[in-house]
Parts: sequence; structure tokens; C-alpha cells
Amino acid sequence: MAVGAEKSLKLNPVKGFRLGIASAGIKKPGRRDLVVMQIAEGSSVASVFTRNQFCAAPVVLAKQHLATQSQPRYFLVNTGNANAGTGQQGLQDAKRCCEALAAKTQISVESVLPYSTGVIGEPLPVEKILAALDDAIEDLDENHWLEASYGIMTTDTRPKGHSVVLEHQGKPFTITGISKGSGMIMPNMATMLGYVATDAQVDPALLQTLLSQVNEQSFNRITVDGDTSTNDACMLVATGQSGVSINPDDSELLDRFVSALREVMLEIAQAIVKDGEGATKFVEIRVDHATTSQEALDVAYTIAHSPLVKTALFASDPNWGRILACVGRAGVANLDVNAVTIWLGDVMIVEQGGRASSYTEEQGQAVMDQEEIRIVVSLNRGQVSETVWTTDLSHDYVKINAEYRS
Amino acid sequence: MAVGAEKSLKLNPVKGFRLGIASAGIKKPGRRDLVVMQIAEGSSVASVFTRNQFCAAPVVLAKQHLATQSQPRYFLVNTGNANAGTGQQGLQDAKRCCEALAAKTQISVESVLPYSTGVIGEPLPVEKILAALDDAIEDLDENHWLEASYGIMTTDTRPKGHSVVLEHQGKPFTITGISKGSGMIMPNMATMLGYVATDAQVDPALLQTLLSQVNEQSFNRITVDGDTSTNDACMLVATGQSGVSINPDDSELLDRFVSALREVMLEIAQAIVKDGEGATKFVEIRVDHATTSQEALDVAYTIAHSPLVKTALFASDPNWGRILACVGRAGVANLDVNAVTIWLGDVMIVEQGGRASSYTEEQGQAVMDQEEIRIVVSLNRGQVSETVWTTDLSHDYVKINAEYRS
Repeated sequence: MAVGAEKSLKLNPVKGFRLGIASAGIKKPGRRDLVVMQIAEGSSVASVFTRNQFCAAPVVLAKQHLATQSQPRYFLVNTGNANAGTGQQGLQDAKRCCEALAAKTQISVESVLPYSTGVIGEPLPVEKILAALDDAIEDLDENHWLEASYGIMTTDTRPKGHSVVLEHQGKPFTITGISKGSGMIMPNMATMLGYVATDAQVDPALLQTLLSQVNEQSFNRITVDGDTSTNDACMLVATGQSGVSINPDDSELLDRFVSALREVMLEIAQAIVKDGEGATKFVEIRVDHATTSQEALDVAYTIAHSPLVKTALFASDPNWGRILACVGRAGVANLDVNAVTIWLGDVMIVEQGGRASSYTEEQGQAVMDQEEIRIVVSLNRGQVSETVWTTDLSHDYVKINAEYRS
Repeated sequence: MAVGAEKSLKLNPVKGFRLGIASAGIKKPGRRDLVVMQIAEGSSVASVFTRNQFCAAPVVLAKQHLATQSQPRYFLVNTGNANAGTGQQGLQDAKRCCEALAAKTQISVESVLPYSTGVIGEPLPVEKILAALDDAIEDLDENHWLEASYGIMTTDTRPKGHSVVLEHQGKPFTITGISKGSGMIMPNMATMLGYVATDAQVDPALLQTLLSQVNEQSFNRITVDGDTSTNDACMLVATGQSGVSINPDDSELLDRFVSALREVMLEIAQAIVKDGEGATKFVEIRVDHATTSQEALDVAYTIAHSPLVKTALFASDPNWGRILACVGRAGVANLDVNAVTIWLGDVMIVEQGGRASSYTEEQGQAVMDQEEIRIVVSLNRGQVSETVWTTDLSHDYVKINAEYRS
């Protein structure tokens, strides 16, 4: 189940970034579950990783490799097994995979970054991965973004990607990204897995700044179940092969680039929410007029994570009292509840500490019946707004997660 | 659905505390939904209320009344309607109910404390309550604890109560309590509703200290869905009519009293969890060797509120990776993940950052198949332990909460 119709993805190639897909049979035989991404020499690479302290072996190793070699040449991604909670053996297993790819492509092991997603706590089937590496390398192609978007899926029901082509002084340049994830999604990390590449030239330090900034406005504002994964990563690569250079000297071009990057990352982040496990609704929660960003986020996430609000959303029930109760328990110091207003879509539901005088159940029902729902809370005490995106909590969420390993 | 077999309740009367039950037809005709509790003159009364800032009208009014009259004489409890999110009208409605009871019993309005539980945001049906007051007053009896435990239920599937009789120098004295609640349960508050009375004599200041302290170890350690209600309250009354006086001069007696009070409050708090909406498992989560209480509680509640852990518990799936991921994202500063150990019951599942070497899936499955499950996390960095109690997340939780108002 997922919210909205599946879009057909048109993912434009990025010069200097090639993707190869193979079947390693990690969890299911025949499934395309291994993706190698090749980055042209001289590219800049930026990264954000999970803040879960039990981070998976590939995350630990990727960070170690980045610390010694800031220009990685390959990403090696497997699905079906997260190689998380696997201790020292997990680190050795991840390293063996990197070593094998490095040997085959005649680069240093530190130039390979590993990524794993899937079930936690099972040993990584290293031999299966090694056996499929040649197939993946042979498959490397700038036009394989769509195939790769399938190759990184776990419980996802649909691939996720977005692409924007811009132009500067007659030269086209491209930003393309793919992502995966539909459960164990919550902020305080990067994402599940996201890979974004551009053929613009961007200095590594600037690239990292832009990734961190746009990540805050996209992947770090989505939540399905409040569970931060052990394996989340988002990578941004700039190959420079379009001949267009992005730098602070041309602020107009920089702004256009950031805007397009935000479009790509927001699209592939929101696609994760729309494909959230069991999701039947896509919900935007905006908190306005807070005094600080943290205060706004506290209120937004309290609503987004409330099982009572989420089940009411699933039932299309305008049970606004549950939203009001969330605002009241979000820990906002000295909140004046009489100043708070709450809207469902364009319908005001709460004012003066209770149901808005103009509200009718029919109005609330009309908003709740929609597949995409916006909740707006105004605290009316400051100037800061924050927005997060989430899903409802359905029978199918329980079914999917109760039966995940069986 | 609820965990374990329903116990038959033996609730001993408390001299000087009488309970009367009536049918007001608030939500369903014929349902016994109104309870009046009469407190003998000269009793001490202690209270804890919800910390939700959108607290309901009866909570606001009860606090106001306690501020002017510290020796209340009546509790007036209705189920079926929470009188929350009802603004100024809600306050007036609660006051009218108190005034009516005060007039009928010839006491001041401030001597009546109101409590409401049920659906949020609907106007309180004041006339129905007023019409049933005489019946409730006429029904007042020291032996009506069991009937009252039914009279305060909402989505509860069974009544909740516990009673202990002690003896001091040949004189018996009693502590009896009842509670209600099965959803919108989380700490940062008192409970749903809890009423505990003793015929021991306890000074009001000491009584408040004891209630606050024992509440921290009972009602404030249970969670079903992480949603703090707008209406939670727990009251403790000491009538003194047994002739036994509890005070710090006799520390042995004081200890016995506190121990019995803890037994009663823990029993009626845990009964709420066992009757949690859709609950099929009763889960104790203990975090040992933390540096601070807050750190231990952060880890415990992160596990207790994780939809992924809760669905795995529902499925009896020893998916320990989800527990490990919770420990990693609980925000413990500078956590050494290699020092953390995690047990399911008596089975060690995690050590050295990964699956314990001695662990087998069969062992984990054997624990998970039980109806009562204990998860123990040792952070191995300090001396503090904390325990919380929670439930799984089942199909029925979604069903109950998606259909609550229909």
C-alpha cells in the first residue's frame, strides 16, 4: 500500500556517475539486490550518516574510509541484510566486500564505501556478494539510475527517484537522486539510503555544507514510525563533468542549484513517506509562530508520532481532540493554550482552548477524507515555522512489521 | 483483549470513605457512568494531576478548588465525556455539576472536586449528570468500591482495584484503590484516573509526599501509547478513622504503610497496562547501570514507545535488532555500544555491539512466546536502574482507536 498513484520516473544520467546492478541472492534468489556506483576521478563527495549510536558496520567503515580518503570512487550497496548488530565480524565482512571491489577495479580499499540495508543482526552473506561483483561492474552505465532505484529497495513497494536538468550559459547540467526506505524512518539521522549526483563542479567543502543544509529540510523532516535506523546514509556527489561550476561568487547560480537540489531531495524524501509501511495518508504537519525551531519541531513530532493521531488519520476521523492533546503534552514551556489555533487543511478546528466556534464536523470530515492532509498548529508566540511529513498508522503497518522476518 | 486472566477483586472498605454509583446515560443509556465519593470530615487529601497543558476543565477546576479548600468532601466522577477541549463552556459546565452536588449535600462548592473521562471535545451533558446525582448520593456506601471500579471505566475491558489490610498494635487499617484507563496512557502525568483511600491517619503534607513518591514508581512508569491524557488524576485520601497514625516518628510503621501503598498503586497501575488497548503482552523494561535516572528512562521509553519493537512483541518475534536500534537512538551521550548488554528474560541477546555469542533463536523465541516479557538493558556505566511497563502494538490497537468515535 502507498499514498497516491505511482509516478513513472524519468531519471537523467549524470556524466561521470555510473551504476551497475546485479543479483547476489542475499535474501531472495533472483532478486536484484546489489548495486555498485562508480564515481569519476576528481569528483567531490559529501555525506550524512545515521546518528544512531548502534550504527551498522558499513556505516562505521564508510566513515573510516572517508577519514583517510576524501575522494571515494565506488559505493557498494546491498539490500536484504543490514550488517547491523553484527559486532567485529560485521566490520570484517564489510571490509572484505570493499577489498574485493577495490582489487577488481584496481583502487585502494579506502576508495570504496559500503552500504547495507535489510534485516538487522544476521551475518552478511559475503560470498554471495563477492560472487556477484563482476556482474555489477559489467553492468555499470550512466543510464542505470532507474534499475539502481529498484536494486536498493527493501520493503519499499515502489522505486523512488527524481531528476532536474538546469542550464547555465548554454551548458546543461543535471541533478539526479534515488532513495529507499519505508519503515524505521525518523529524523536524527540522514535518511534510509539516498544517493544524489550532479555533473556540476562543486568544491567539497561547499558540497558538504549544501548537503547538510538541504538534508535538514528534507530527509531530516520525515518520519514514519519514529524509529531511527542503524544504517541511514545520504550521499551527494558532484562530478564536475558538465563544465558548470557552482560557487559563492555566482550567487544567482548557487541559488538555482540549491533550489534544484532541494527539489530532488524533498521529492525523494517525501516519496519515502508516501511509501511508508501500510501508509494510506500523506500528512504534512506545520507548526507556525513558535519561538524556536526546536519548540516547533517538538510540537510537530509529538503529533506525527502519536499513535492516537495516526490511527484517527487512518480512520479519516476528525478527532481533533487528539491533536490538541499532543500540543498540550509536547513540553512547550509556559504555553498559553488559549492562544493556540489548529487547522485541518483550511478548516480552523481549535481556538480559545477548545473547538473553534465556526467548526462543523462535516468540514473536518471533508478534509480527513482526502489522501493528503495538512495539519497546521499556530502557537502564536514567535516567528519560527517548521514542517514535517508523516503517515497514518494502519492495520497494514502492524501486519507488515509483525510479519517482517517470517 | 487484555493480558492474563481477569482476577476477581476483593476490595476492602475504608472507614470514612463511601462511594455511590448511578446511571446518567452520558454516552450510553443504562450504563453506570456516574460515581460520587464521600470523604469524612477531617480527612487528609493528596493529589497529582496531568502535566498536559491542554488540561481538561475538571482538572482546572479541581486545582482551583484545592487551592481554596484543602479538605475536599466529595469527588464527582463521570465517564463517557472528558469535558476537555471545551474552553470556557467546559469550565462552567464542570462548575454547575459541583454546585449541584454541594447544594444537595450542604457543603461549599470548593469542597467538591470534579473528574471526567471519555471523548474529548464534546460538551458535557450537564442536565443528565444533575438528574442522576440523587441516585448516586442515595447509593453511598463504604462497600461500593467494586461497583465504583466499574462506574469509572471507558474503553477498559475489566475493572481495576487492589486492597491491603495491615495491622498495628491490634488495630487493623486498610488501603484500597481503584483505577481506570487503557489508552492515552503515558508518563509525565499522574495516570488516567486513580482513587486510593486509607483509614490510617496521615498528616496532609506527609500524605502528599508519599503520593508523589509512590506515583513516580507506579503510574508514572507505565505507558501504552505514549499519549498523555488531558484528564489524568490520582487522589489519595486518609480518613484517620482506624485510629492508626502514620508519621515519621515510627519509621517501621511508616515503611510498612509505604510498602502497602506501593503494592496497591503498582497493582492498579500495572492493571491499566495489562488492559491496554489491544494488548496481548505485558512487558517490563528495566534499564540498569545508567549514570542518571533520566538516562535510564530515556532508553526504557524509547524501547517502550517504538512501534517496531511493539509490533515484534505482538508477533512474538525475537527481533532483537529493533531493541538494539532503540538503545542506539535514545540520545545517551557518549554511549559505549560495546559495553551494552541486552537480555530477553534470562537470555542474553546482545553483547560486544552485536548478537551475543551464546544466543540462539530458539532461546529468544521461548521468551517471546510468553505473555509476560521482561527486557533488561545494562548500559554498564553507572549505578542507576529504572523500570517501566508497557504493552505490544496489535491489530486490535489500531482497530479500537480507528473506530473509537464511530
